[in-house]
Amino acid sequence: MSRRNGEATRKRIVAQAAGLLNCQGYLRAPVSEIMRVTGLQKGGIYNHFESRDALALEAFNYAFGRMRDRLLSAVSRKKSPSDKLRALIGVMRDATKLDEFRGGCPIMNLAIESDYADPRLRAAAREAMGQLVGLFERIIREGMELGEFAKGDAHARASHMVAAVEGGLMLSNLYKDESYVRNIASRLEQEVSEGLR
Amino acid sequence: MSRRNGEATRKRIVAQAAGLLNCQGYLRAPVSEIMRVTGLQKGGIYNHFESRDALALEAFNYAFGRMRDRLLSAVSRKKSPSDKLRALIGVMRDATKLDEFRGGCPIMNLAIESDYADPRLRAAAREAMGQLVGLFERIIREGMELGEFAKGDAHARASHMVAAVEGGLMLSNLYKDESYVRNIASRLEQEVSEGLR
Repeated sequence: MSRRNGEATRKRIVAQAAGLLNCQGYLRAPVSEIMRVTGLQKGGIYNHFESRDALALEAFNYAFGRMRDRLLSAVSRKKSPSDKLRALIGVMRDATKLDEFRGGCPIMNLAIESDYADPRLRAAAREAMGQLVGLFERIIREGMELGEFAKGDAHARASHMVAAVEGGLMLSNLYKDESYVRNIASRLEQEVSEGLR
Repeated sequence: MSRRNGEATRKRIVAQAAGLLNCQGYLRAPVSEIMRVTGLQKGGIYNHFESRDALALEAFNYAFGRMRDRLLSAVSRKKSPSDKLRALIGVMRDATKLDEFRGGCPIMNLAIESDYADPRLRAAAREAMGQLVGLFERIIREGMELGEFAKGDAHARASHMVAAVEGGLMLSNLYKDESYVRNIASRLEQEVSEGLR
């Protein structure tokens, strides 16, 4: 196997495993399922990763990267902090229909799954959640500086928004009913329109 | 083994497994860990349960029962809908310190874990979440009838409250920092004091 082919195979395994693991669990999905979606034998998979956890970590980082790109792309087209914040909330509102969120939010999934598990997976969930809350927080802070939003604790507000949409997405996935996350997104959009007062 | 001893052993396994599975995952925790906390061999465990999933289901129902009892007990001491709702929020605010929530909220844990898993586990997560949202919803509806709360969609409000505290609890568990769920609970208590206007 040439080095270039090896790298291509490795990337393909990560991408294919990412979709599977976000649905069936980063830690729970059986290796037999990873073999099925990649079309490889166990040896062919572990040739590229030192362990099951190492593959789970790369698959999570791939899934989180796609989610982050989707959020950043929605924000990049907007000028004002209010519009940027509404764009973030809009992605989460539509998450049940987006491929990036199939199986739920990758960060929440790993956050729940990685408790009492491999500390590298736990650290990855924390790092990713920190980036998500930080994205909301920076826009809220920018809006405060520009006078679009009332002064307040930007981190607490960002955490509340993330908690509410994550909780809503969990309910929508549990019941396969998008109204939960959509109703919560509407409430948050209303708060943004009122300047977070 | 007498029938009575068998039943006592079975109950002990469920109670001991419940604490473990809520921390290490209802579907993920290895049987070796269940053997460790119960002090039984594999055969001694499976003598009482038809499968790993059947034990997980009973352990979840045990954990959810304890959580529900804690919530109902907090509510039972209160008279007005506002006080009842604050009592529910108060239990969630303190959840990181309560034994019933060690390892996180059992319902959210199973909701995340049971996607694409045994349909009986999925159904149990839905049933339990329905009871949790329903508890908030009945109190909100009562408060509307008594004029304590503004008229509105009681189910949507209850779902939003549950989503926010569950999301907050997830963040607090992820970062081992109780401030997330406490800040969100304070916001919700404020909304209750303002009559959910």
